Amino acid sequence: MDKDLSKITDSILRSYESCGGINHVDGANLPSKRALASICEDLLQLLFPGFHDQEPIRSVHLPRVTSYRVTAIADRLREEIAKSLRLREPGCPETKAERVLFDFLERLPEVRELLTTDVQAAFEGDPAANNTDEIILAYPYLEAVAIQRAAHVLYDLGVPIVPRIMTEWAHSRTGIDIHPGAKIGRSFFIDHGTGVVIGETSVIGERVKLYQGVALIARSLAGGQALRGVKRHPTIEDRVTIYSGTTVMGGDTVIGAGSTIGASVFVTRSIPARSLVFYEEKQLQILDKDKRGQVVVDDWMI
Amino acid sequence: MDKDLSKITDSILRSYESCGGINHVDGANLPSKRALASICEDLLQLLFPGFHDQEPIRSVHLPRVTSYRVTAIADRLREEIAKSLRLREPGCPETKAERVLFDFLERLPEVRELLTTDVQAAFEGDPAANNTDEIILAYPYLEAVAIQRAAHVLYDLGVPIVPRIMTEWAHSRTGIDIHPGAKIGRSFFIDHGTGVVIGETSVIGERVKLYQGVALIARSLAGGQALRGVKRHPTIEDRVTIYSGTTVMGGDTVIGAGSTIGASVFVTRSIPARSLVFYEEKQLQILDKDKRGQVVVDDWMI
Amino acid sequence: MDKDLSKITDSILRSYESCGGINHVDGANLPSKRALASICEDLLQLLFPGFHDQEPIRSVHLPRVTSYRVTAIADRLREEIAKSLRLREPGCPETKAERVLFDFLERLPEVRELLTTDVQAAFEGDPAANNTDEIILAYPYLEAVAIQRAAHVLYDLGVPIVPRIMTEWAHSRTGIDIHPGAKIGRSFFIDHGTGVVIGETSVIGERVKLYQGVALIARSLAGGQALRGVKRHPTIEDRVTIYSGTTVMGGDTVIGAGSTIGASVFVTRSIPARSLVFYEEKQLQILDKDKRGQVVVDDWMI
Repeated sequence: MDKDLSKITDSILRSYESCGGINHVDGANLPSKRALASICEDLLQLLFPGFHDQEPIRSVHLPRVTSYRVTAIADRLREEIAKSLRLREPGCPETKAERVLFDFLERLPEVRELLTTDVQAAFEGDPAANNTDEIILAYPYLEAVAIQRAAHVLYDLGVPIVPRIMTEWAHSRTGIDIHPGAKIGRSFFIDHGTGVVIGETSVIGERVKLYQGVALIARSLAGGQALRGVKRHPTIEDRVTIYSGTTVMGGDTVIGAGSTIGASVFVTRSIPARSLVFYEEKQLQILDKDKRGQVVVDDWMI
Repeated sequence: MDKDLSKITDSILRSYESCGGINHVDGANLPSKRALASICEDLLQLLFPGFHDQEPIRSVHLPRVTSYRVTAIADRLREEIAKSLRLREPGCPETKAERVLFDFLERLPEVRELLTTDVQAAFEGDPAANNTDEIILAYPYLEAVAIQRAAHVLYDLGVPIVPRIMTEWAHSRTGIDIHPGAKIGRSFFIDHGTGVVIGETSVIGERVKLYQGVALIARSLAGGQALRGVKRHPTIEDRVTIYSGTTVMGGDTVIGAGSTIGASVFVTRSIPARSLVFYEEKQLQILDKDKRGQVVVDDWMI
Repeated sequence: MDKDLSKITDSILRSYESCGGINHVDGANLPSKRALASICEDLLQLLFPGFHDQEPIRSVHLPRVTSYRVTAIADRLREEIAKSLRLREPGCPETKAERVLFDFLERLPEVRELLTTDVQAAFEGDPAANNTDEIILAYPYLEAVAIQRAAHVLYDLGVPIVPRIMTEWAHSRTGIDIHPGAKIGRSFFIDHGTGVVIGETSVIGERVKLYQGVALIARSLAGGQALRGVKRHPTIEDRVTIYSGTTVMGGDTVIGAGSTIGASVFVTRSIPARSLVFYEEKQLQILDKDKRGQVVVDDWMI
């Protein structure tokens, strides 16, 4: 068996040489997914003190606990920021990573303020929530939005890759895929959440409510990489509600303020403010399985 | 750096004072997500003995193993139940948590009996399943349904928050979001599963089959919290099949027995028994990309 | 309390006797989900060297690291293969598991070659990707496709259950459910990914792009288990793009080469090559909420 395994090792090593595009050998140190996962967990504890802890926090201990948490996040995040900056700019000095880190940490109170409006929006919008504690403890969307709001700060500060790894960590846990580039207003609520996609250049106003499976995506054009940086994803204005499974596509598509979009709709152009959008009810065929003579178009309908 | 970090700590501590709604400081002990995750794993071992173990179980050891598992679950779950009861009723005595715990454990054989019908329904409904072992080992829906059926018992017994944390644990692992309040009949099967949402007041009959992305949701009304406790989610009668991505909405919406609903439909009113429901085929536009003169409405179609 | 718990243990033990179908007691050793999860993680390190490591790999160390990884995977995977073969054929000799293992390992360079084309397709198709490193580090679809391409080799070699446990491991992490039986051509890209379902007998050509929530499923027929082995899932020809939430159903349904299918469509019959498919735009109702006199069909529209 050992001889066979060494033959296999040789053939895999040859494949590392011939298919180089998916190796990372002799390269710079990459940001660590594992380190960033642990930083994301610590960020949630810092943003929602007492909710993600095993024991309740007493207020007399809060300064010490918070100072410890800030230091622990700072030490590890500075290293990940430094690694990612050096991927783009090899000689990038440690001090630059440190400056970005402080700019990020200074904006956390602002992130917390936005999250307070999100929790309130979820409580007002969902009769299944008994209180805001239940939302912070159990609603997956809040975790996804908290990580996105934090990652968005890093994205704004020009940090490559790290913000995306953070939102993909939340995506894996919640099924909610919000690109760190998306701009999201106050009082944002996603009910249920699984399958929601919010693309990089999306702009979302205040008091917007999305259901699971709603997608704000770009057209898939031949342009590909030529479109990098161009606004490719929709704008959703204030007080819009979009029901489950609806896709809104394109960078110049605007859903006007106060509109409601039904489920499973494909929207590819702008919708005026205060609109209702749904497929005409009469297009929905409701046939009686037991009535003879009607056209049964397929055997799945039996 | 230390001086800067201590400034940042101060600004975060000030934010804890000004945005109090998302802190949990000096409060009662909250149920622990980590403890409940481990209890859920142990419950799956107890419900499906031998399937979630590293080694096969011999029948001579089964009484000892089962006794150990029951005790281990009881010790930790009693504590989580007590913490959650005290959030609502601060002086709630330990004996009340213990009584709820026993009521829960006594109903586990009934949960197992329902799960046996679910496994059989999955096997009969899915030609990709080679045997029921494969379903219990690999089908995510079964894990989501097992945890929901157990959490539903706790919900029925009036335990706050804990049942929801349990179903959200399963949601995170499977993408299937079934509220612990939902009433689900025997022989239930969800194929593939990701993105399924079943709201708190849904009622599901026997032999129902759902595909991934099916949503049983409430209308999003201005009422908000005023609607708590009201039936807001649909009723699905016996032997209904609903294909992927379809949304059924509203508390008085009933899908009649024996009906089949196609994929990506938005159903907002009741459907009679034995119906077929789908969008009229002729509404589907099928254009030839290479034929000139037809209206191309958007450049994504090129 | 101890007396009550022993009563509960007894009633659960009785339930193990009366509901035997969901126990695995005195049976053969089952494949271990935990062991296969760890094997999948190691496979990703072997397929994409340097990307899933904490430290960068130096080329001088690559032969030693690779040899170690191959050996570590081989030792554990042989055992899981042996256990699964013995479920079907109790006396199956260790040498058969070993032969299957070598056949699998020998095909890994071929898997890597396909993955190189997938990464390139993702980079060309997504302007949000800054470089291929970001795709390999952060895009969940690549993990799902890598595990499916490896599991497909084991499926082809006739190994039961193990390939499905592997793809369900990826499903749990990514929300992407690709059956190990599906045949997938070069340069495959799934954008965002959550909720994608690709059934066992699907056949996918080259340069196909799917968005999240796209489902290639079988009709749900009374036949059930009688259909095992029959082609039940669609064929998607080369250069097809399918937008989010669309379901394509049935084993004789073929989406012709170069076609584009819009979002939230339910396709139950074949589509010719070079087609555009979407629901007619004029069926989409766009009403003004503030205009009196129009029929408001439901109060969710207010």
